[in-house]
Amino acid sequence: MKFIEYLKVYKPKIEKAIETIYNKKIEDVDNRFLNMYYSELEDYFLSGGKRIRPLLSIATFNAFSKEEDERIIFSSVGVEFLHNASLVHDDIIDKDNFRRGNPAFHYRFQNYHENYKLKKMNKLDFGNAIGIIGGDSAFFLGLEAFMNNNFENELNLNAIELYKNAFIEIANGVLIEIDLVNQKNLSISDYIEMISLKTGALLEKSILIGANYAKVDEKYKSLLSTYGINLGIIFQIIDDILGTFGDEKVTGKPTDGDIREGKKTCLLIEAINRLEGEDAFQLHQLIEKQEMTDREVEKVRSLFIKADVANTSKKLAEKYYREAKDALIKLKSVMNTSEFEFFEDLLNFVFNRKY
Amino acid sequence: MKFIEYLKVYKPKIEKAIETIYNKKIEDVDNRFLNMYYSELEDYFLSGGKRIRPLLSIATFNAFSKEEDERIIFSSVGVEFLHNASLVHDDIIDKDNFRRGNPAFHYRFQNYHENYKLKKMNKLDFGNAIGIIGGDSAFFLGLEAFMNNNFENELNLNAIELYKNAFIEIANGVLIEIDLVNQKNLSISDYIEMISLKTGALLEKSILIGANYAKVDEKYKSLLSTYGINLGIIFQIIDDILGTFGDEKVTGKPTDGDIREGKKTCLLIEAINRLEGEDAFQLHQLIEKQEMTDREVEKVRSLFIKADVANTSKKLAEKYYREAKDALIKLKSVMNTSEFEFFEDLLNFVFNRKY
Repeated sequence: MKFIEYLKVYKPKIEKAIETIYNKKIEDVDNRFLNMYYSELEDYFLSGGKRIRPLLSIATFNAFSKEEDERIIFSSVGVEFLHNASLVHDDIIDKDNFRRGNPAFHYRFQNYHENYKLKKMNKLDFGNAIGIIGGDSAFFLGLEAFMNNNFENELNLNAIELYKNAFIEIANGVLIEIDLVNQKNLSISDYIEMISLKTGALLEKSILIGANYAKVDEKYKSLLSTYGINLGIIFQIIDDILGTFGDEKVTGKPTDGDIREGKKTCLLIEAINRLEGEDAFQLHQLIEKQEMTDREVEKVRSLFIKADVANTSKKLAEKYYREAKDALIKLKSVMNTSEFEFFEDLLNFVFNRKY
Repeated sequence: MKFIEYLKVYKPKIEKAIETIYNKKIEDVDNRFLNMYYSELEDYFLSGGKRIRPLLSIATFNAFSKEEDERIIFSSVGVEFLHNASLVHDDIIDKDNFRRGNPAFHYRFQNYHENYKLKKMNKLDFGNAIGIIGGDSAFFLGLEAFMNNNFENELNLNAIELYKNAFIEIANGVLIEIDLVNQKNLSISDYIEMISLKTGALLEKSILIGANYAKVDEKYKSLLSTYGINLGIIFQIIDDILGTFGDEKVTGKPTDGDIREGKKTCLLIEAINRLEGEDAFQLHQLIEKQEMTDREVEKVRSLFIKADVANTSKKLAEKYYREAKDALIKLKSVMNTSEFEFFEDLLNFVFNRKY
C-alpha cells in the first residue's frame, strides 16, 4: 500500500488513541485549571502533524504479523507523545510562538496570564513555566501506551526501554548540535552523527517498538534500524537543502533562515570543506557575523552555488537512500507485501519531497 | 532503627547506585560536551539532599522482607531521579540560581555560555535550554532503576506505573497551586489537596514502589499510602510555619519570603478564614500588593499572630500526624521491628523539626 493510503487508514485511529489517553486524564481531574491544561495539551497534539512515528510502529508490526491486531494502535502512540513533548520544549527553547500554524503550547498560556494575579511571574515566564511542565506531562503520559494494553509484560518493558533510549539519543543529538556551533573544522561525519541521533533515533525506535510487539527475530532488527536511522538522515539532509534552495511557495518557509542563523547545515559544512582561498575566507567571515544584510545572505548563497553544495548534499542523501533501500530489499521475503510497498514508497517520498 | 542511623547505613549505597547510572551514561558518550553535561548532572544530584525518597523505598521493602536483598538499592533511586529532575525544572521556573548552596543545573550552563558563540541565544536562554533538556534527561534516566535489575518484569512494570503516576500527581499539585493564586475564598481542604499532590504523592509512591518489590499484600497498601501522603502533608505544613515563624539561624531561610511572595501557605489561608472586619480587610489589601515594605511584612505577621495561625496550623499537622501514626500502628504486627521504629522515628522527626 502507498504511504499516503496507509496514512489515510491509520491516522484517524492513531488520533483516537491519543484522545483516549487525554480524555481519561481530563475525566480524572475535577479542577477547572487542570481540565483546561490537559485540554490545551490535547488540542496542541491534535492540531496538525503527520503521525509518521506511530505509523512506523504500526506498519512494522503489520509487516511481520499474520493478522491485524488492534492492540498495536494504542501502543503506537507512545512515540507520538515523545515527539510532541519534545516539540513543546523545543518551542520554548527556540522562542517559537507557533507550531504547524497554531499557537505553541507555552504561548497559549502566555495568553492566559492576564487572568492570573501572579506577583512573581510575568507573561513570558508564566507561559514558559506551564510549557516546561506541559512537556514533562506529555513525556510521562506517553508511557501509558505501553501499559494496560494486553501485551505481555516483557514486551511492554522492552518498549519502555526503547522509549527511554529514544529520548536519551534525541537529547544527545540536540546537545551535540549546540556544541557544533563552536567547532571550526566540521566534518560531514560529525553532522551525520548529530542528525542520526536528533532525527534518526526516534524513527528507528518507532520501527523497533513495532518489531518488538510483533516479536520480530533479532536478526532482522539491525536492517530495520538501518532503514529507520537512514530515513531520518535523508529527511534532515533534504530539509537542509529545501531550507536554502527550496521554493518558498511550496515549502512555506523563508529560504534565508538557516543562513542568517548560521545553522550548521550540511550545505554550510560542505561549503566550508570545499571552498578554498578567498572564497573560504569570505564564507568564514560572513557566517561569524551577528547579523547579516540581505546582500550578505545572497553572497553566502552564491558561495554555496559555487561550491555546488546542493548537488553534493543530494548525492549524500542518495548514499543513505541506497543503504536504506538495500536493507529493505533484504527484508522483502520476510515482510508482508503491502507493508514492503509502504516502506519503499515512504523512502521515495522523503527522498524526493519538495516541501 | 532510628531514622538517622538508617540513613547512615543506606545513603552511601543510594549514592553509589546514582553514580552507577551516570557513569554508564558518561562511558557511553565520546563527545566532550555530552561528557560534561552528564558529569554536571551527576554532580548536581550528588551535591546535597537527604535521599529520603529512595530511603522510603528501601525501608518499606525491608519492613516486609525476610532477608536483605541488594536489588532494592538500585531500584530505589528512580524516585530520587524523579525528585531531582523536578528540582532542575523548578529552579528554572523559580529563577533560583542556587540549590542546597550549590549552583542550580541551568545556572551552571549560564556560566558556560561565554565559551559558545551562539548567535540566537543569550546567556540566560542558553542556561534555560540546557536546563530544560537536563531535567528531561533525568526523568528518563530514572526509568533505568526499574530495568535490568533482576526483578520480575511484572514488578518493574508496576514500579514504572507508580513512577509515572507520581509525576502526574506532582504536576497536578503544582498547577493547582498556581491556580490557587486566583481564588478569593480558599479553604484549608483546597490547600491539603494541593500539598497532598505536590509533596505527598512522591513520598507515597516511594513507599509503594518498595512495597511492590516486596510483594506486600494489597490490603496493607492503603495504610502505607496514608502514612506516605500524610508525611508529605506534615512536612509542608511545618515548612509553612518555619517559613514565617522559624528561627532564621536554624532554618537558614529568611522569614519574610513567603509573606512577600503572597504564597498561599496554610498560615495565610487560616488567617483569611479566621480574621474579621477591619483585620480581614487589611490583610486582603496587604497581600494584594505588588511589593511590600518591611513595615507591611511585619503587619501581616502581627495579623497572623492575632489569628493564632501558627498554633492552628500545628494542630492541623497534628491531625495528620495522628492519622499516619494510627496507620503505622495497624501495620506493626506485619512489619519488621527495625523498620517500624524507622517509620515511627521519621514521622516524629518531620513533625518536630525546627529546620
